[in-house]
Amino acid sequence: MSTAGALVVGQSGGPTAVINRSLAGIVEAASAAEGRVGAIVGLRHGVEGLLGGHYVDLRRQGPEFLADLRETPSSILGSCRYRLADEDLGRALAALKRLDARYFVYIGGNDSADTTHRLAQAAEADGYDLTCIGVPKTVDNDLPVTDHCPGYGSAARFLAIAAMEASRDTEAMRRSDPVKLLEVAGRHAGWLAAAAALGRRHDDEGPHLVYVPERPVTVESVLADVDNTMRAYGHAVIVLSENQPEPSGQVIGSGGEPVFTDAFGHAYYSSPAEALVRQIHQELRIRARWEKYGTLQRMSIPYRSETDAAEAIGVGREAVRLALAGATDRMVILACESDAPYRCRVGMAPLAAIANEQRLMPPEMVPQPRGGPTAAFRCYAEPLLGSPLPRHARLVELDV
Amino acid sequence: MSTAGALVVGQSGGPTAVINRSLAGIVEAASAAEGRVGAIVGLRHGVEGLLGGHYVDLRRQGPEFLADLRETPSSILGSCRYRLADEDLGRALAALKRLDARYFVYIGGNDSADTTHRLAQAAEADGYDLTCIGVPKTVDNDLPVTDHCPGYGSAARFLAIAAMEASRDTEAMRRSDPVKLLEVAGRHAGWLAAAAALGRRHDDEGPHLVYVPERPVTVESVLADVDNTMRAYGHAVIVLSENQPEPSGQVIGSGGEPVFTDAFGHAYYSSPAEALVRQIHQELRIRARWEKYGTLQRMSIPYRSETDAAEAIGVGREAVRLALAGATDRMVILACESDAPYRCRVGMAPLAAIANEQRLMPPEMVPQPRGGPTAAFRCYAEPLLGSPLPRHARLVELDV
Repeated sequence: MSTAGALVVGQSGGPTAVINRSLAGIVEAASAAEGRVGAIVGLRHGVEGLLGGHYVDLRRQGPEFLADLRETPSSILGSCRYRLADEDLGRALAALKRLDARYFVYIGGNDSADTTHRLAQAAEADGYDLTCIGVPKTVDNDLPVTDHCPGYGSAARFLAIAAMEASRDTEAMRRSDPVKLLEVAGRHAGWLAAAAALGRRHDDEGPHLVYVPERPVTVESVLADVDNTMRAYGHAVIVLSENQPEPSGQVIGSGGEPVFTDAFGHAYYSSPAEALVRQIHQELRIRARWEKYGTLQRMSIPYRSETDAAEAIGVGREAVRLALAGATDRMVILACESDAPYRCRVGMAPLAAIANEQRLMPPEMVPQPRGGPTAAFRCYAEPLLGSPLPRHARLVELDV
Repeated sequence: MSTAGALVVGQSGGPTAVINRSLAGIVEAASAAEGRVGAIVGLRHGVEGLLGGHYVDLRRQGPEFLADLRETPSSILGSCRYRLADEDLGRALAALKRLDARYFVYIGGNDSADTTHRLAQAAEADGYDLTCIGVPKTVDNDLPVTDHCPGYGSAARFLAIAAMEASRDTEAMRRSDPVKLLEVAGRHAGWLAAAAALGRRHDDEGPHLVYVPERPVTVESVLADVDNTMRAYGHAVIVLSENQPEPSGQVIGSGGEPVFTDAFGHAYYSSPAEALVRQIHQELRIRARWEKYGTLQRMSIPYRSETDAAEAIGVGREAVRLALAGATDRMVILACESDAPYRCRVGMAPLAAIANEQRLMPPEMVPQPRGGPTAAFRCYAEPLLGSPLPRHARLVELDV
């Protein structure tokens, strides 16, 4: 077996503002490992590219490629939502052997950790000397073991600032549009929804209400909260999760049935914000609007967190270091040593501890709807946002 | 009559990323006019504040107020969508006299120009020495006479970069989500939709298709364009206006009837992007998604154009200069002297030439759906975006 085997790298799942920085960290570290890494092979569209033989040579890209890559959102290799089936494993190993692969590095979330773990096990069972390392990536921040996930800090910063901006907008437009609902990503965890309230500085400022999946609510209680907020402040800005459940477990507005279920069995429901807007019209007779930030919330570069951007490169480099050191069936993790001052180091954990697990917010971080972020959540999340949130002017109501 | 009469200022219409900078320019210039301006009175929610007696003293805000205001999105005084009725004019003048107002400055779009114009005429008919100056503001860029409107450059920059980012996202996710429609603001003009294509660098990159109201299209031709784009590139990113009409004049998906008509008689239709997504599913059997950027596209600070930010202050200052010089019934305008290098100066024009008029794109700037921005539009719009658009990495498909 060649000591200069190929390093094969892929990106999987939803693109982020910083997943290309993890790739840049991997390519930089592999290129710097003189004589120990042969080809650096990019998989087009993750394991779909492995199974379909669709590769790209990452050693021979243009001279500005890596510098530009750091500033490029989304997943430049192409992503996929395909999970390796048992019957794919033999074909995947054969493809890796044809590439003379010695190192397999896969950037993604829970499902990607599962794929990487199963590939590591299959290689071991086969006696194939392949080191398989996962690199964490998800804006949803729902991976266990790691303190947080690259991608989260930037999406959290996006939502914290966008919610501040939307609140200024609703304050200004309250005569015609007094109620705004912001529906945010996060799958079944409230990490992102909770972060959207981090820029609130005063009680009368939005977002006034925050709903997270860890705290199911009835539609009636949301309507009562909106009514109380309108009475107190004359306008209301509300953040809620894309999968906000009622106490029954049913997502608000879904009627219990997912609209769509993806290849991993994840269910997609109709919009709870849209359903609530209708209820607010009907029950409170107040005009309400809703917005969601779609793909922009997960991969906007101008709102990116510089802390997140730096860590994303670091986890990529660490993956190569671990692979070269012979570690396998491991994921790089971030381990925080201190919140103030913020100190975080890279580490590793078994992929099996991460694959297919979902980490919800712990109770001390779950916000009360009207309470804003808890102190524990502020300590945890604020360092991840990078530079301080903007300061907005506040008008003092002085009579003329 | 006092020579140190009050200056009364209001903000109207949709908030932007830079309308507070115009206010800052006004307050700065009025404060600097030693002994010539008495109170600086802010109207809460525009002319609604004038009629309701809801004012705020802008001379006595905190020491950091003006510096913070420059970085604060939306309209800090509060906005309105109320147009002065004939029977309001007497009450408005009486309120201004009670304030000892000598200068009235109103920041807004077409409708605000109408309000300011009618107030100027009513003051003149009344023999009341009041100078009335309009300050342009609209992301839609649809005011006549002025070369462009403060607010437009920042919204154009937002959409140009967001469309680049969304294109990177769709490239990555094309295996599961190959078609993305971006529905953008602009009322009945295509200035913003056209700007969303300014970041496209290569034929295979999105946005591949751009539809503007100045060029009505049939749903059939959109479906044919999407089909062709999918065949050529395997994914398709489409920009279209929120009011994209068919050749009949009917907005796509509207069934002819507006969902809602506001106080100015502006009609609001259901989403053409949503209607097209359904058609693409049904007719082409392709999964499509649509996004719109809601209020964020008009008042995001991180995507702001620095050229726009600077000009917004300049038009505010010029309004005070004109008011002090005795001009009335005028709007500040921007007059471009050169595109390369970009040189633009402030000027003025009669409000009557601007009020209630809507400027569409001239034929040489209207894009063909598959053609990208025209050369004339690039010359016009690129300087308004401020610093160069980001450069994204481009993967070269080199076999391993």
